[in-house]
Amino acid sequence: MRQKKQNRNIKKKSQANIKKKTFEKETWKPGTMIYPLPAVMVSCGDIDKKYNIITIAWTGIICTDPAMCYISIRPERYSYDLIKKNMEYCINITTKELAYATDWCGVKSGRNINKFKEMRLTPIKSPNILAPMIGESPINIECRVIEIKKLGTHDMFVSEIIAVHASKDYLNEKTGQFDLAKANPICYSHGKYYETGKLIGKFGHSVKKKKK
Amino acid sequence: MRQKKQNRNIKKKSQANIKKKTFEKETWKPGTMIYPLPAVMVSCGDIDKKYNIITIAWTGIICTDPAMCYISIRPERYSYDLIKKNMEYCINITTKELAYATDWCGVKSGRNINKFKEMRLTPIKSPNILAPMIGESPINIECRVIEIKKLGTHDMFVSEIIAVHASKDYLNEKTGQFDLAKANPICYSHGKYYETGKLIGKFGHSVKKKKK
Repeated sequence: MRQKKQNRNIKKKSQANIKKKTFEKETWKPGTMIYPLPAVMVSCGDIDKKYNIITIAWTGIICTDPAMCYISIRPERYSYDLIKKNMEYCINITTKELAYATDWCGVKSGRNINKFKEMRLTPIKSPNILAPMIGESPINIECRVIEIKKLGTHDMFVSEIIAVHASKDYLNEKTGQFDLAKANPICYSHGKYYETGKLIGKFGHSVKKKKK
Repeated sequence: MRQKKQNRNIKKKSQANIKKKTFEKETWKPGTMIYPLPAVMVSCGDIDKKYNIITIAWTGIICTDPAMCYISIRPERYSYDLIKKNMEYCINITTKELAYATDWCGVKSGRNINKFKEMRLTPIKSPNILAPMIGESPINIECRVIEIKKLGTHDMFVSEIIAVHASKDYLNEKTGQFDLAKANPICYSHGKYYETGKLIGKFGHSVKKKKK
């Protein structure tokens, strides 16, 4: 009973700072306003032949088990055909350190330049697919395309996650746990890139009972 | 020519802080490691009858034009049937202020509780769909489902964005521009919630010529 009352008090306190707003809204035409989004570098092609990097924010998880994800790309982009040919690509999580390269690889086309070379990034052979992984990225996700869905300006590559590779630089020496926050992953929000901010809490923190 | 050299110098400087790492990787089984992700509150059902909120990170943009998005949900979740019935839902962007409610609505089931009431959130009538919008959210996105894709643990609701509503509280009084960062949207990364961090730069900042 005391616990219940305590929980209620925590709730009251936590919600107290939500100011009473007018709830006045301005209506816009349909737009892509889900934010913040990941800004990943997708490496594709064949590490022994032609390969490239494209930066993508239209990406995410679509299923937990089997682990599945997607990327959406305009058919006119150079990477589109590279991915379609082998039906494989690698998602590389980006960080504050990689922010310049992340933006650059999203603006430039790889048709006439080697983006790895220009950005001094290291292509590493992936264990399961032809596309290279970006060595400097803290997390590399090997993906196999299972369907290309035509939607409009973008085609959606519905994909299976084959394997995940985590940089040992971010493993906690004592616990062995991977500390992604240490890598400072960046996000894309309304036309701008941001660092990861202050920690708010773990998933489930709102219902966690306080230790007596 | 001088501009080119200058650009090269900027690049060198920007990449200089990428430390030479070992590129040693630890391989994991396939997992859902794309981060940071948005942590949105999805409101669903019918504002005049039964309605609910479910927090979702498996969401994102899949096409720019027409503006399309998705949410992936486990069929056993209470909101699954509510959304399937009307084939409509609203995505509400979450903020630091809404962090407690965001976590709570992701952990609790709405089968026997009114989450709006419990979290003191305000259901507002949506102009185009039956599902309510969350008044306290800075951005409300009305969505219509066009396909439910069975994938595994989760079904993917492939959707069209019908309209976007932006809270007038975040409009810049001088420019009229919407300032999402002012709302401090939160993200979900590897089991934890984070605030939006420091601004890194606008999209395209890596190729922007310096003003003379």
